[in-house]
Amino acid sequence: MSGLAVAGLGLIGGSVARCARSRGDRVIGFDPDPETATYAREHRLVDETVAQLSGLFERAETLVVAAPLEATLEILEQCAGREPDGVRLIVDVASVKAPLLPFVARVRGFVPTHPLAGGEGSGPRASRADLFAGRPWAYVPAGDERLDALAVAFIASMCARPVALDAAHHDRVVALTSHVPQLLSTILAAELAGHDDASIAELYGPGLESMLRLARSGWPMWSSLVAANAGSIARGLRALAGSATAAADRIEAGDFSELQALFERANAFTERLDARSHDRR
Amino acid sequence: MSGLAVAGLGLIGGSVARCARSRGDRVIGFDPDPETATYAREHRLVDETVAQLSGLFERAETLVVAAPLEATLEILEQCAGREPDGVRLIVDVASVKAPLLPFVARVRGFVPTHPLAGGEGSGPRASRADLFAGRPWAYVPAGDERLDALAVAFIASMCARPVALDAAHHDRVVALTSHVPQLLSTILAAELAGHDDASIAELYGPGLESMLRLARSGWPMWSSLVAANAGSIARGLRALAGSATAAADRIEAGDFSELQALFERANAFTERLDARSHDRR
Repeated sequence: MSGLAVAGLGLIGGSVARCARSRGDRVIGFDPDPETATYAREHRLVDETVAQLSGLFERAETLVVAAPLEATLEILEQCAGREPDGVRLIVDVASVKAPLLPFVARVRGFVPTHPLAGGEGSGPRASRADLFAGRPWAYVPAGDERLDALAVAFIASMCARPVALDAAHHDRVVALTSHVPQLLSTILAAELAGHDDASIAELYGPGLESMLRLARSGWPMWSSLVAANAGSIARGLRALAGSATAAADRIEAGDFSELQALFERANAFTERLDARSHDRR
Repeated sequence: MSGLAVAGLGLIGGSVARCARSRGDRVIGFDPDPETATYAREHRLVDETVAQLSGLFERAETLVVAAPLEATLEILEQCAGREPDGVRLIVDVASVKAPLLPFVARVRGFVPTHPLAGGEGSGPRASRADLFAGRPWAYVPAGDERLDALAVAFIASMCARPVALDAAHHDRVVALTSHVPQLLSTILAAELAGHDDASIAELYGPGLESMLRLARSGWPMWSSLVAANAGSIARGLRALAGSATAAADRIEAGDFSELQALFERANAFTERLDARSHDRR
């Protein structure tokens, strides 16, 4: 037995499937939404779909659970109740890792992971074989060398860069780099929506488009992530609110030296990111 | 006499020049930075550069002042002291309009304008002939029908959509759609820079990249804009800080109904923007 099984054929699962097929792997998939499953089959994201999740379990060496957090926990619960079968590695892709930790002991072959990838759009139509190319893909070492090596090999097969860190550290970092930025974009869009002025939806440039890209994300995907990482997210939002209030105070007072320092810190940080991403090319 | 004169050959001025030349217009340019002027000449953004700003004044029917706000005010001050010459239309491109209003009476042919365009990068290397294609380009009617028609014709010649509104209204709107988003991006980057954790510059996806695109902007370009629009910008920042604090409160209390409503308002706003931009295609 070899090949890949993918539970959930949206943007992430669809991209995992496309990437694996582009390397010549056989991929079977499952999605609870019949339309998504049909799309994935007809557009050859997968070689085959199965009608029940359990149909994936004995069909591939690697199982990728690419579902929203709550569904991911349910699927792992099902895996926990099973006798050993042919699956050697099971990974999830959720953007919080602490809630997954109990399953490391309970599900044979399970390694919690999180690809830092995404893009315009969602669903299988937005999936791309190169979605993960050059991107970081975090994993929480399970403490079993052979298993961790399988996880690293899987991540490398997606052309992503494996980054090992513990679950609590991961969740603190992605609160700042993903969850808080998401809420900020949503808050900005909701604030703009609250103004009764048609010119607001008319007079804007690419800068605002960039700031509102994430505001298209829906609450159903975020509710369980926000609940699971509430403390770090709330802390991050409060820090930003404090910084925005301080900036407003200084702008009103005409005290610009701190604002200059703020821009310089921001410039230095983006230069650091740009230098890193340049190094990787 | 015909053709276009451009004072300032950065991203905006360079793109104006490229667009005009692509239509077959003769374009002369000036930039106080010799390197920028040389680049613009060698890469044929302009047909010719002049060594002094005043060299532009008698050479074209339309003068575009594409400089930072303070330099723009200085250039208009120079124009105000001159006798009538061949120039029929003078426009600026600054993203605040109230400080320009005094020059409407003092500079013959002047109409305050603001293209809502931009993009990755800055300077003449980032300029593109199609930077303004389909974008809104605000103008503040000068109250002289013939002159306003010239401004509209110039904006249309850049393939942009002319949007008339008064200066105070313009400045309130762009505070929300441009200046506050800029500060938000800067504040987010500065906040991330303040954490002593190397994983922050490692574990991020395209969502953060999108939120930090504007954080590359430098304070020199923003200082006079922030000063000129301080009241509206400070109000906008306070509103967002309040909204972020309220979201943090609710996340900590596990009270998610308001957060769902926030996401839904944000989704509705981005859908409105997407529907508009779709209509325009």
